[in-house]
Amino acid sequence: MVRIAIDAMGGDFAPEKIVAGVIKTAKELTDTEFQLYGDEAAIRTYLTEELANIKVIHCSEKIKSDDEPVRSIRRKKDASMVVAAKAVKEGQADALFSAGNTGALLASGLFIVGRIKGIDRPGLMPVLPVFNGDKQQFVMMDVGANADCKPHHLEQFGILGTYYSQYVLGVKNPTVGLLNNGTESTKGNELTKEVHQLLTANEAINFIGNVEARELLQGPADVVVTDGFTGNAVLKTIEGTAIALLKTMKKSILSSGLKAKLGAVLLKPTFKKIKSSVNYEEFGGAVLLGVKGPVVKAHGTADETTVYYTLKQIQTIVTSNVITDLVDYFENN
Amino acid sequence: MVRIAIDAMGGDFAPEKIVAGVIKTAKELTDTEFQLYGDEAAIRTYLTEELANIKVIHCSEKIKSDDEPVRSIRRKKDASMVVAAKAVKEGQADALFSAGNTGALLASGLFIVGRIKGIDRPGLMPVLPVFNGDKQQFVMMDVGANADCKPHHLEQFGILGTYYSQYVLGVKNPTVGLLNNGTESTKGNELTKEVHQLLTANEAINFIGNVEARELLQGPADVVVTDGFTGNAVLKTIEGTAIALLKTMKKSILSSGLKAKLGAVLLKPTFKKIKSSVNYEEFGGAVLLGVKGPVVKAHGTADETTVYYTLKQIQTIVTSNVITDLVDYFENN
Repeated sequence: MVRIAIDAMGGDFAPEKIVAGVIKTAKELTDTEFQLYGDEAAIRTYLTEELANIKVIHCSEKIKSDDEPVRSIRRKKDASMVVAAKAVKEGQADALFSAGNTGALLASGLFIVGRIKGIDRPGLMPVLPVFNGDKQQFVMMDVGANADCKPHHLEQFGILGTYYSQYVLGVKNPTVGLLNNGTESTKGNELTKEVHQLLTANEAINFIGNVEARELLQGPADVVVTDGFTGNAVLKTIEGTAIALLKTMKKSILSSGLKAKLGAVLLKPTFKKIKSSVNYEEFGGAVLLGVKGPVVKAHGTADETTVYYTLKQIQTIVTSNVITDLVDYFENN
Repeated sequence: MVRIAIDAMGGDFAPEKIVAGVIKTAKELTDTEFQLYGDEAAIRTYLTEELANIKVIHCSEKIKSDDEPVRSIRRKKDASMVVAAKAVKEGQADALFSAGNTGALLASGLFIVGRIKGIDRPGLMPVLPVFNGDKQQFVMMDVGANADCKPHHLEQFGILGTYYSQYVLGVKNPTVGLLNNGTESTKGNELTKEVHQLLTANEAINFIGNVEARELLQGPADVVVTDGFTGNAVLKTIEGTAIALLKTMKKSILSSGLKAKLGAVLLKPTFKKIKSSVNYEEFGGAVLLGVKGPVVKAHGTADETTVYYTLKQIQTIVTSNVITDLVDYFENN
């Protein structure tokens, strides 16, 4: 039985939307146990149905979104996120979910759940949608766990991403690309030039060379490898550009007279469809990969639907045995 | 009289569209001299009008888009880009324009036109549009001239950007932001943490702190400072995301039945308006700032309109005296 430890107090709409998402998922995945960590009274307010596979574990504290990550997880010993992470560490749960403070969740993953032996730097990895390409999706790693990376960290991201793509997303022999400032193999900064050589030499990685940020959303590889600073900037740029464009379009339609207004009414369903495909949250949360159990972060604005998709993703990760086999790989390599 | 040296052979549609853009601009800016460097016969084919302020200087070679930058500018001594750069170096022209090979143009700027004394790393700087913000535009630097940067290079980008924003774009006391992975002053990688301190301490810079990639298109600062690797990735991500989104929208409209098709017809003018505002080329080319004369790169796909806007931008740069005053500043600091 898969058991998921859930930080019920993390996120802008916690605990209400977290609990709502858990109820929706628990009804569908009746063989999975959902452990809700947080203020019991607050959780029970929204726990409108009694389901056998939902448990509530009371915690007296919570990590706030502006808490200093490392300090807060050390001081707030009874915080929902911290207690949930400990449940994973101690084998009472298989995975950790939170929509709360990203830094604190990364710290909980690294310092409480703990790194897989042989992995120097676990990385944060979202699943991103592909537009106008053959693929449905791809993963990118790291997008923010490590602001400074050494070449072999990126090589390990390549292994981690390959395993995830294969086990969880079902891609056969996933391709790995290196995010770089040009496609030629001689391009790059000091870091990517070295990484290019490591990825080329590593036989466990199906390396297809450099990929450029311009082609990212066309899915140039199943796994895109980058340092956490660049990955973070690129991810936030995708988000910011999409939001800015949709806003501009809306404003432009509203201000350009009757003709366009009429068009907007007719186009409403089309717009909605695009908006939801831009929303990469529906493709699942970002996974901290390289720790002993999956630690998954949903966006702070996570609603019932996001929580539902992310929990289903976590169930798939756990049943795929990707972590077990990664532990094996890094023990023997 | 402002004299602009133009590489007539650079770009996907050269020399036709370059010459067309020059004719359009030369008619308007009758006090500016336009020097067309390239294959005289080819240029004359498109030079449909004889204007007193257009000169043709024949060159027997050209740099191709896939030529290795540094090697090609050294070997092809009679290439249009190289001869045009020499004209700037030798004082026969005030600025250099090309839509050709970016690497070769950067090399021409650095090795032929030459760095301003005191500037270690000239940077490439585009003017970017602002969506849904108070500002019209902002500049970002570096977006690709320097893949590896030291902290003081970014400090110099702050000065260069400030001068450009003030002299050329007419912004009073321009704000400078540091592209980083969080807004708090303690955030960042090793590089940005050091840069944050340098920018804070520098009295010539109106530093407003860290800015995140998510808010870039809302214009969080007049000048955004970043290393050339990250800046390149961010710029290409903006471009790729905008293109992917507009394509998806088009496809979605076409495939979703009569209702939406009708909407698309009505919305056509609105779409066109958005497309042209996304097109940051209309805001001008990217400037290699920090060399002795403005070196300006237009996109490889530059058409008559892009060439026109970019040449007008160059005229403004030269008449603003920004380069002269930058030379003064770096000589005395």
